[in-house]
Amino acid sequence: MNAQDFERWTQASLNAFESALDDLVPAGAPAGLGEAMRYAVLGGGKRLRPLLVLASCAAVGGDSFAAMRAACAVELIHAYSLVHDDMPCMDNDVMRRGKPTTHVAFGEAQAMLAGDAMQALAFEVLTPLESEGSGIAPALQARLCSLLARSAGHDGMAGGQAIDLASIGKQLNEATLRDMHRRKTGVLLQASVMMGAACGPASPRATQALSDYGAALGLAFQVVDDILDVTQDSEVLGKTAGKDQDANKPTYVSVLGIHAARTLAQQLRAEAKAALAASGLADVSHLSLLADSVVERDN
Amino acid sequence: MNAQDFERWTQASLNAFESALDDLVPAGAPAGLGEAMRYAVLGGGKRLRPLLVLASCAAVGGDSFAAMRAACAVELIHAYSLVHDDMPCMDNDVMRRGKPTTHVAFGEAQAMLAGDAMQALAFEVLTPLESEGSGIAPALQARLCSLLARSAGHDGMAGGQAIDLASIGKQLNEATLRDMHRRKTGVLLQASVMMGAACGPASPRATQALSDYGAALGLAFQVVDDILDVTQDSEVLGKTAGKDQDANKPTYVSVLGIHAARTLAQQLRAEAKAALAASGLADVSHLSLLADSVVERDN
Repeated sequence: MNAQDFERWTQASLNAFESALDDLVPAGAPAGLGEAMRYAVLGGGKRLRPLLVLASCAAVGGDSFAAMRAACAVELIHAYSLVHDDMPCMDNDVMRRGKPTTHVAFGEAQAMLAGDAMQALAFEVLTPLESEGSGIAPALQARLCSLLARSAGHDGMAGGQAIDLASIGKQLNEATLRDMHRRKTGVLLQASVMMGAACGPASPRATQALSDYGAALGLAFQVVDDILDVTQDSEVLGKTAGKDQDANKPTYVSVLGIHAARTLAQQLRAEAKAALAASGLADVSHLSLLADSVVERDN
Repeated sequence: MNAQDFERWTQASLNAFESALDDLVPAGAPAGLGEAMRYAVLGGGKRLRPLLVLASCAAVGGDSFAAMRAACAVELIHAYSLVHDDMPCMDNDVMRRGKPTTHVAFGEAQAMLAGDAMQALAFEVLTPLESEGSGIAPALQARLCSLLARSAGHDGMAGGQAIDLASIGKQLNEATLRDMHRRKTGVLLQASVMMGAACGPASPRATQALSDYGAALGLAFQVVDDILDVTQDSEVLGKTAGKDQDANKPTYVSVLGIHAARTLAQQLRAEAKAALAASGLADVSHLSLLADSVVERDN
């Protein structure tokens, strides 16, 4: 697959994804709640997690309806975490994806509720009612809920956020920093890959390889995030640059220095690609090119 | 079943429930998160939702392991909603179940994260890993996740909260008030009954009857809550009394007056019992006595 084919696949996937998500996030939820939910999740973001779900499903030849639902669910979890993370009691950020954060636009109470409802919606999306037509096998629904809940909760994203909160102003060694980011960002990225794999018949060997790929890619994503936080300005990022530094949060750049952080990102990309090579899967080109795009991105 | 048998069943059920919940809420979650989660959900509350799950499962002769998991999951959702609802940007309440609210004890950021992690944990609890031993049939896992997500989300609890927020200082008619409370409180109580019923082989007739029972009971619960808010003091309630009145929120008492509100509670109890009588189920005594306890409670 060349760069042009990948670009074409990415665009087609994103178009289908945006349309599916638009259908699933209710405009009609009461008292402005639907508006806040739609503001927080539609029409913005890199959509890396959905692309990972879809690419992983394609690699195992899986059920594309289920994968699209999983892609929407994982993005809902990611987007809700941003809404809550941006609130005054957390990072107190006013700009996200180039526009005012949800609590700035809708007030804190509505933002908190929208985040809460988005998390619930993620699990609704994974368990479609029979009346919604094309279904997902019940065992796959259960497996997807299990993967998503565990990556979002205390042992995953929420746990990572708690460590993050507690780490402000502290010196961390690389191992602790890695554990924090594994939970905070890595686990949900890895779960995206695993949810895609769950949609198809993946061998134990392929499943393990995709898990290793997801773990390496998840860390690479965060290392690059930390690099961009100090090398890019807010306009390119679409969010406030330099905020980790300002908040006195430990980052890969503050712990390792910018040079070693860049080297680590390259190492993690190589690890991710080595895992794909060991998977025994015939076509892992989308996943491979997604690893490139994570490491080479500028926002 | 006499009052003494019911008391014995309730105590035994609550003991088993508290023990199961204690096992499931992780003490070891990082950076104080587990402590905040356990503070918010263990050792307090009436546990009405878990009792409804267990009583409904008993009425249909269902899988008691699955029902206990469902009982824990629904209480986690209820408890997380209280944590978020008590926060300064929502009701700004400092006392709950006779002790400081979670954000007072742990700070706002940790309270928000604990609530978020508790919602995720509810879905983890419903989708046990094979390594956790005794399992739940995958189709039942999916069904329980579907019921819980829909009752917690935009069309249920979170949507009701949004209406509640928007209603402050407004005059509502009884129909709008009923819709708000149906979503905010009723849907999760009804879902508790339906989750219990899903654990067993319930006929369509029994399922419909239990749904009607849950709907009536859910509204009765809220009507009684509104009555107690003006007739009891904070010490008996374990939370701030008179707060709806102070916040200028419409309630059944403010819309109907105390006398008509009391009459409505009795009517709803009669509706709930009529539904049970129509269910065709042999033993609905626990559910019937739970309806009595909802209407006759003093806190």
